[in-house]
This record gives sequence, structure tokens and C-alpha cells, in this order.
Amino acid sequence: MCRFLAYIGKPVLANDLLYRPQHSLIERQSLGAQEMSIPINGDGFGISWYDFELDDEPCQFRSVHPAWSDMNLRYLAKKIKTPQMFAHVRAATPGSLVEEINCHPFVHGRLSWMHNGMVGDFPKIRRALLRELNDKAYDAVQGSTDSEHLFGLFLNNLRDPTEPVTTDEMVEAMFAMFNDLNRLLLESDIRSHSYLNLCVSNGRSIVATRYTTNPRVQPASLYYMFGKEYVADDYRCYMIPDEGQSEAVVIASEPFTSVKSDWIKVTRNSMIIVDEDLTIRFADIELPFEKAEFVYQ
Amino acid sequence: MCRFLAYIGKPVLANDLLYRPQHSLIERQSLGAQEMSIPINGDGFGISWYDFELDDEPCQFRSVHPAWSDMNLRYLAKKIKTPQMFAHVRAATPGSLVEEINCHPFVHGRLSWMHNGMVGDFPKIRRALLRELNDKAYDAVQGSTDSEHLFGLFLNNLRDPTEPVTTDEMVEAMFAMFNDLNRLLLESDIRSHSYLNLCVSNGRSIVATRYTTNPRVQPASLYYMFGKEYVADDYRCYMIPDEGQSEAVVIASEPFTSVKSDWIKVTRNSMIIVDEDLTIRFADIELPFEKAEFVYQ
Amino acid sequence: MCRFLAYIGKPVLANDLLYRPQHSLIERQSLGAQEMSIPINGDGFGISWYDFELDDEPCQFRSVHPAWSDMNLRYLAKKIKTPQMFAHVRAATPGSLVEEINCHPFVHGRLSWMHNGMVGDFPKIRRALLRELNDKAYDAVQGSTDSEHLFGLFLNNLRDPTEPVTTDEMVEAMFAMFNDLNRLLLESDIRSHSYLNLCVSNGRSIVATRYTTNPRVQPASLYYMFGKEYVADDYRCYMIPDEGQSEAVVIASEPFTSVKSDWIKVTRNSMIIVDEDLTIRFADIELPFEKAEFVYQ
Amino acid sequence: MCRFLAYIGKPVLANDLLYRPQHSLIERQSLGAQEMSIPINGDGFGISWYDFELDDEPCQFRSVHPAWSDMNLRYLAKKIKTPQMFAHVRAATPGSLVEEINCHPFVHGRLSWMHNGMVGDFPKIRRALLRELNDKAYDAVQGSTDSEHLFGLFLNNLRDPTEPVTTDEMVEAMFAMFNDLNRLLLESDIRSHSYLNLCVSNGRSIVATRYTTNPRVQPASLYYMFGKEYVADDYRCYMIPDEGQSEAVVIASEPFTSVKSDWIKVTRNSMIIVDEDLTIRFADIELPFEKAEFVYQ
Repeated sequence: MCRFLAYIGKPVLANDLLYRPQHSLIERQSLGAQEMSIPINGDGFGISWYDFELDDEPCQFRSVHPAWSDMNLRYLAKKIKTPQMFAHVRAATPGSLVEEINCHPFVHGRLSWMHNGMVGDFPKIRRALLRELNDKAYDAVQGSTDSEHLFGLFLNNLRDPTEPVTTDEMVEAMFAMFNDLNRLLLESDIRSHSYLNLCVSNGRSIVATRYTTNPRVQPASLYYMFGKEYVADDYRCYMIPDEGQSEAVVIASEPFTSVKSDWIKVTRNSMIIVDEDLTIRFADIELPFEKAEFVYQ
Repeated sequence: MCRFLAYIGKPVLANDLLYRPQHSLIERQSLGAQEMSIPINGDGFGISWYDFELDDEPCQFRSVHPAWSDMNLRYLAKKIKTPQMFAHVRAATPGSLVEEINCHPFVHGRLSWMHNGMVGDFPKIRRALLRELNDKAYDAVQGSTDSEHLFGLFLNNLRDPTEPVTTDEMVEAMFAMFNDLNRLLLESDIRSHSYLNLCVSNGRSIVATRYTTNPRVQPASLYYMFGKEYVADDYRCYMIPDEGQSEAVVIASEPFTSVKSDWIKVTRNSMIIVDEDLTIRFADIELPFEKAEFVYQ
Repeated sequence: MCRFLAYIGKPVLANDLLYRPQHSLIERQSLGAQEMSIPINGDGFGISWYDFELDDEPCQFRSVHPAWSDMNLRYLAKKIKTPQMFAHVRAATPGSLVEEINCHPFVHGRLSWMHNGMVGDFPKIRRALLRELNDKAYDAVQGSTDSEHLFGLFLNNLRDPTEPVTTDEMVEAMFAMFNDLNRLLLESDIRSHSYLNLCVSNGRSIVATRYTTNPRVQPASLYYMFGKEYVADDYRCYMIPDEGQSEAVVIASEPFTSVKSDWIKVTRNSMIIVDEDLTIRFADIELPFEKAEFVYQ
Repeated sequence: MCRFLAYIGKPVLANDLLYRPQHSLIERQSLGAQEMSIPINGDGFGISWYDFELDDEPCQFRSVHPAWSDMNLRYLAKKIKTPQMFAHVRAATPGSLVEEINCHPFVHGRLSWMHNGMVGDFPKIRRALLRELNDKAYDAVQGSTDSEHLFGLFLNNLRDPTEPVTTDEMVEAMFAMFNDLNRLLLESDIRSHSYLNLCVSNGRSIVATRYTTNPRVQPASLYYMFGKEYVADDYRCYMIPDEGQSEAVVIASEPFTSVKSDWIKVTRNSMIIVDEDLTIRFADIELPFEKAEFVYQ
């Protein structure tokens, strides 16, 4: 499937997140992810980031090239210093199209969105899903991925996707999206399972999920770490522990630094919420998705 | 051939230089340059820029796509604020390869380089040119364009291309490059003419040339403007006049704002030098290139 | 907008159609179309062709690169010998995405489809159009262009788009598509005009249209020529006149050979039908599109 | 490094060689080569093939996209029927550039060339190698890979690389290339080892090598199989045994069919020669490369 990372906190150099870690997303996880059955993520990549000194909308840089050989990303990473960044390396669902518009993260208005996983039998619910969307959410969906259609469903649950969105509104819209998807899957009698590690940000807070409809397996891996500061020095990359309030939080598909003790696994079928002050809280995702008779194909 | 622009001065938003002007490099000159016989510049593009708060080396972003449709550039332009930027849209010499490594600007160490024009009968002098280069300059040439080989010849005339370079050293190396090229053309008895509008920067000063070996025609067009500040407001883009010292200088293949009176044409076969304090001076380029018997093919 | 050509008849080398003509689609019309207000067609290209010795489905080769610099096309053109070929150079509607899935020709089952023009205010009818489609036609639409959505509407008017289709079925489906589009435009009260030079083939016959809803201007140009054989010799490209039955027919946005007398203009708002035996017939397209109060925007 | 295959014999459909085999080059070996330490070959791909009914020069199709997701290749493979094909999936040497001109196979005149491996410390001998080349061989090298420079050195050992070349001339030029490379490596005191699985064809015969300068390890894997006909039926892909003279020969980095008994390993440091009548012979490659003091870095 895919691998991603999200950072929020003190401005950090993209290079320190993307290239310098021992098990870096761009040079290691794209070629040899460790916690996935298929370790190759060569079907494009993307990053999004915010610079609030300039404006409130994320910048997006995506490409269909494998991340590991992209020279533009290599240069850009040394010049991007940002308080909030998403990065994603893609392994396209077999048969799906590798086009720039299908690369994550997706952005709309002030929001960024990315996904690691898949919606079971997505083609069978696509039309029904699109029918539900208001025009703004509908027009926001430009490509053909299940991931971006979920983003459409999320946007559809916001008052107005082009307006500022609070942390709580993101949490509510995420839950509403899960409910809508659940209903659509049931209505179409879909029996393939879905894997829904999702991540959304307004630049100032992040909501992420680790979820699968399949009761017999674990969801795709998801970790987080937090501290006073994320540091990449000559020897290693690590998180300086905080005393009280965190000033840096990382969420990632798999640990990318060598200090394994920094990393905490996100619980199965739960939501992790990093608020504007970087406090972290969790919520369970409980849905009737998990019907015993579901058979993963 | 190509079109380019260079900016130096107060930090400016790339979007204000590249997209907002009425006759913008990215959306207008790439599709319909006005001062060239072939108006299409669709064979890739590139930008380079500096952010001295982070480091002294330029960032480079290049692509083989036509500039006018590139979504990454459109996003990036809104997030790059820089005191020195190069931008270039390319019309490849027919038969030459449209590859990312052949897109301008070229960067090496702390330097950026771009070219509008061509070296007459370049394939006939390529081997001789490369033979002259020291190993550092040789290794800096990665592609197959005449433009990047001229950059190699320029780097070959610096003490050490990986060290900081002053304005005067750039001027000297540029003159030396013209002399070397002149000699190479004469030695190979090349009778096709060359068009050499070149631009090099160390991020803090710029040296540019407007030159042709052909006595019967004008060199490709080259303009500059200077002032207190370059502004893109809701109505137009223009330069606020300075009182005394300039704080912003633009050099461009053709005027891209609608305020024509802001723009001054660079004299035929001369060099324009914008120093670290943004003072502008000129130098003649006089070379025995211009032999009457040369026949432009 | 775009430029295209279609060939049907005795097997011909793609190179003779695409590169050797004086005003060739790939090297001339892509850079300087003569019968369009905007002469640049640099937003990708594509070809489709049939080889009935192997199977009945078209081969498709598309790229987002400008046609004029694509080395793969240059090589392939010398190795493709085919009785039916489409070729298309694209000028994307401003703001639309330059992705491979948005390049013409589109293929589905045994059919190829291409379009020169635009649907007025297409975003306003897109959802309504998609709602009309049966699942097969819906799933055939993979990209976001108006052109491919028209193909969807055409497929929707066939019994089964994956089955063999006769010339007459193509003619009927084309008329039905015009009717459906007409209704959709009226229902949404669209007042922008549409330009619909369309071309569809099953490999053995071709149906093409030259049409605009705008009563005040001409549709985009469309020509045809026919004869015993299309020849590209050392001096020129031309059609050998036939004596009786034609064995080669070309339909093209603009004449690409220098023998202007070979070319005949297709009448305004009509359909040209080239049958399996290469007889050519015409039909008028008369629709209530052409309401006087329509204002072209 | 890379993986490749070469076919010669009765015309075969590319699809049967590239997509239908169980362990296919395009869909399996590109993502998970089995006989290499690094199993990913996602840095571009290419094919070359001949159609002697049209002309004597190979057609070339290359792309920087990963082979597994390329839709053009998927379509083309169903339309190419050819007596001689090369196919190559690339894993670029880290740091080297992923550009179309650096993708294998390379073609020149009537010849095709591909390489699996690397030249030890290539940057240190590049200038010396290029200095040896005559102008025709020099101009044939367009990119920056070690592989294409070896092709240049091979072409330099032909009387005239643009003229027809016999099997024996290819064998001689291959040996001469090994000798030249050996000398260049010794002159520059290179102590890194080289891996030289090379393959060259004139469309009617093939010369390939399996070689390493490193006495302590095996060269990269190389296999061949031969028979009356290569068949891809609904159940599997395999070679029908011949009775006497072969009519189909395959050389490949690793077996791609499930019938393992069809495949024979090429001996260490030897050359396999498939002549115009498809007889297969071998030759040893013995060179003073293999100095005991060499240290693989």
C-alpha cells in the first residue's frame, strides 16, 4: 500500500524529516518498507506543507516518479522549513493509474489529506459515494483514487470546505466520513475489507486514524512520537524529551529514526488527535463495519 | 531559443514575478514570446533561488513539462520568497534532447547559470571544449546542452567552483569564458554564429551578457529595470522608483510588466553587472569573433 | 484547442502521415497550427491504431510531453504500419489537467475517440451527464476532460460498448450523443457555446463531425481527402487519385500536405462517414442548440 | 543493478515475453527480482525490437517510469510481433540520473545494447575512455551511464558503427571492448570491481556476456533457453523442445517462466553467441582484470 509521515510543531527542515533519518521515508521506506507485505512504494510521492508567514493554504508538490530518485525533492527538502508537513510515498492499487493527480497528499482550501490503505471493492461504491457529495466536495475530487474520494466524503461533512476548519470540526467530519463509508459499504453489500489509515491537517492540528474493517488482522502500522524538539544531528535523528508541553509531534507509518524507544504504536481502530497546542488525545472508532461474515479477498 | 528572467533585491514572492505580470514568463512568454522569431518555449523550464537564512546554495526546480501547465510550479511560486531568483522557459535546439538535466538554470556550488541563445555548430567544438576543463569543471557538466558546457567553461575559469565567488571573479571568469569560446570557434573554423545571452549569480550579485558573433543582426533581446521595490498589486506589476540606491533589480529577455517605461534595453554585445549593493555597471564585450566572412547558417 | 488527423485505407507507415508532410501534425501543427487562433498544441499527444492481423482492439500510445520532442513517438512512427490511425496534439483547456489519462485518443473495447473543441461550461453539466450513464459507460470515463465525457455519452448510446460496433451503430450513437448533450445543455441553461469536431472509429470505418452551437462563427476547421493511395516520396506527400473506388481516406483538422487541391473542407455542422468500403457520405446535424440568444463567453 | 531479457527467433508477441510469464520482467522482476541483493528495478525501463519487413534499424521505446505501471508499454506489448527483442528494467546506480537517455537498451545504427551491472569507479575512467573514441563512437554516447560508455567503446572497435555488422564482428568488438576497458582500469589503478553482463544484437544474432572482475563472487546471474518455439498458453509459458535446429532462443537475467528445467545457467566469465541460424556457441573471457590484490569496495 503506502507509507506516510506527518510533522507538527516547531519549524523543522524537510530534509531532516525526509532524508537524514536512518530509515527515511524517501530513501528507505520507498524501497524497503519494513512493516508491510509489499515493501515497494514507487508509484509516485508527494509532500504538503504550510508557511503561515505567507498564507494559510498548504503548498503541494507531487510527482509520479519514484521518490528515491527525484532531484527536485532532494533540492526542495533543503529549503523547506515548516511547522506542519505531510509526506507520502505511494504503492498504487494494482491496475489503478499512476498520474500526478492521484498522488497524495491531496489539498483543498486549507486542508491536506493522505491515506495508507484501501477501500474494499471501491469501484462498486464509487458512484453511490459521488452521488452523496455536495457540489463543492464533488468538484474537489479530481482523480480516481479511493483515497481522494474519502477526502471528498470528509469535505462533504464540513460546513464549507473553503472556510477555516477547527480541530473539533475535523474530528467530527472524520467520524461522519467513517459513518457514511460504513453505510455505503453495507448498502452495496461489500464483503472485501477496508484499510483506513488516514491523516488530515489544517496546518495547526492533525487528526489521524489507524483502522481496518477486518477483525482478523491488524490495521496497517501507525506510530507517533512527541517531545521538545525533533533533531537531526551528525550522528542520528531523535526527539528531545519535553518537560510538560510538547513542541513537536510526529505521526508515521513506521519508525524512521533509529531510537526505537521514541516511538509509540497507535492502538487498533482508534483516532489520534494532535491539537493546536500539541496536546495529544485519542478516540475509539467503533462501527458496525466489523461484521464477522466479512471475508477478505 | 528561450526566455528568462533574473531578480535580485528585497525578498519577493515568486508568484509576483512569474505568474501575476501581464506578459508573464510562465503563462505568456512560454506560449507567445514577442521578441523572438519562434515564440514557443515549451521544452521544459526551471527556477533557482536562494534562502540565505538556511544556507548559501541555490535551490533548483526543473521539469521537462511545459511551464504553463505545471501544477507544482504554480503551488511553489506562492511559497517561495527570495532575494535572488532565476527563471527560464526553454525552446530546445531542434534535435537536442528534452531531459530534466538539460533544463536551465544549472547550479553548481553557490552558483546559478542560464542561457538564451546557442553556440554555432556546437557539436563540432564539444570535444575540444571538454578537453580544456579541469576535473571539477568537467564533472559539473551533466547534460548535453551547449549552455551547460559554457557553464563548464566558466567554472573552469574560477579558482575553485565549490568556493564562494565574488562579483569581480564572476566578471573575470565570464570574460575568460568568452575568450576561450572565441579561440575554440576559431580553431575549429566554425562559421555559424553564436548567440550568447548568459546570466550567472552567486545569490548576492548577477552578471549577464547580451551578445552575438553575428555583426548583421541584433543579439536576442535583453532588458533590465531597477527601483525601490518590485510590486504586484491588484491592478498591475511595476517597479517603485528609488531615490538614490536601488533595492530591486530585474533582468529579463523581454519586458513582462505593462509599464513599458520601467524597462531599459541592454546595449548590443555588452555585459551588465549588478553588484551586492545593487549598483549596476556595464562592460563592453569586444572579441575577434565578429569576422566579416562569418556566414550565419 | 487541438489538432487531429485520421487515416483509413491501405496500410500506411505512421511516419509518412505524422512526420514527413510539409505541415506535419507532430512537428508543425503542434507548434504552429494555421487555422486556429491559439496555435500551440503542447499539452500532450496521442495516437491509436489497429493491426487486425493481431487482434481487433486499438493500440494506444499517449504522453504528456509535447509531441514535437518525443523520441519514443519518433521511433514508433517508423515501425507502425496500419490501416487505421488516429493522431492528436492537445492544447488543454486553460486550468484543466495535463495528465496522460486526459490525452486523446481515448480507446474503449474496439473503439477510438478524439475531439477538437470544447463543451461550453462543461463543469456545470458534468454531474448531470455522468448520472445518465450506465455502469459500463461510466467506468469507461477515467479522466476529467469534456472530450472523454462525450465519449462516455456516446458509449452510453451503444447496446454494449465492449461488443463489435457497425458503422451505422456509430452514426446512430453519435446523433444520440448530440441529442443528449443538447438536452443537458438546455436543462442547465448553459449559454456558452460548444465546439464539437469529433472523430470515432472501430478500425474499419470512421464517423467524424464538424460542429458548433455558435451560429455566428465557423466551427473549427475540418478537411478530408481520398484517393487510390497516400504517398510520401522524397519530394512531397500527396494522394494518388483513384479511378472509381477509394483505397485511402484522410480526415484532418487542417491540410498537412502541400498539395492543397487534394483537400476538401467538411461543411459546417455536418457529419462525414467513411464506410468499410471507404465510400464517403455526409449527414447534416440539426439541433435546437443554435438558439439566437446564446452568448459566447 | 538491473534485469534484462533478449529474444531471437520466430516472431513472437512482446506480451508473451514481457507480461504473461509467471515471473515476468515487467510485473515481477521489476518489483521483486529473485537473484539480486537489491530487488527493485524501478528507475525506468526500455525495449528495442526489429521489424525487417520495414527496415533494418531497431525501434526503441524507453521511459523513466517504473515498468510495472506504464500503460503505453502494456498496450504496445500486444501489438509488437518481432523476431528480436531486448527488454530491460533499470535500477540506477545510486546518485546517477534517472533520465530517458540513460535507460537501456541503447541503439545506434542497426545495433541494440544493454547492460546489467556496473563499472567499478566509473567516474575515474570516464574522461580517459571518451578520449579513446573516434568521433562517430563519441557522438553515439548521449547520456551519462557507464553502460552507454561501454557501448561507445564497443562501437569504437567496429569499422563503421553505421554499417551492417556481422556476428563475428560483434564478437571481436566485444573482446576488444573488454581489453580496452581492462587497460583503462589498470591505467587508472581502479580497485573497485566491475560487473559486466552485456548484450548486443544486430537484429539477426546476439552476443552476450556474464562477467565480473571480482574473483571472490559470482557474476550477476544469466540464463538461456532454446527450442522450437516459445509459447504462452492459458496455463503457462514454456519452450517447445526442438529436434535439431533451434528456432527460438531466450537469454535472461533470471528465469521468467515456471518451467525451471528449460533454463540453463551461463558459465562464469564467458560469452554466449547466438548466430543467425540460432546455433549457440560460447567463448571464455580471460583477462588480467582479476588481480588478487583488487579490493571490492
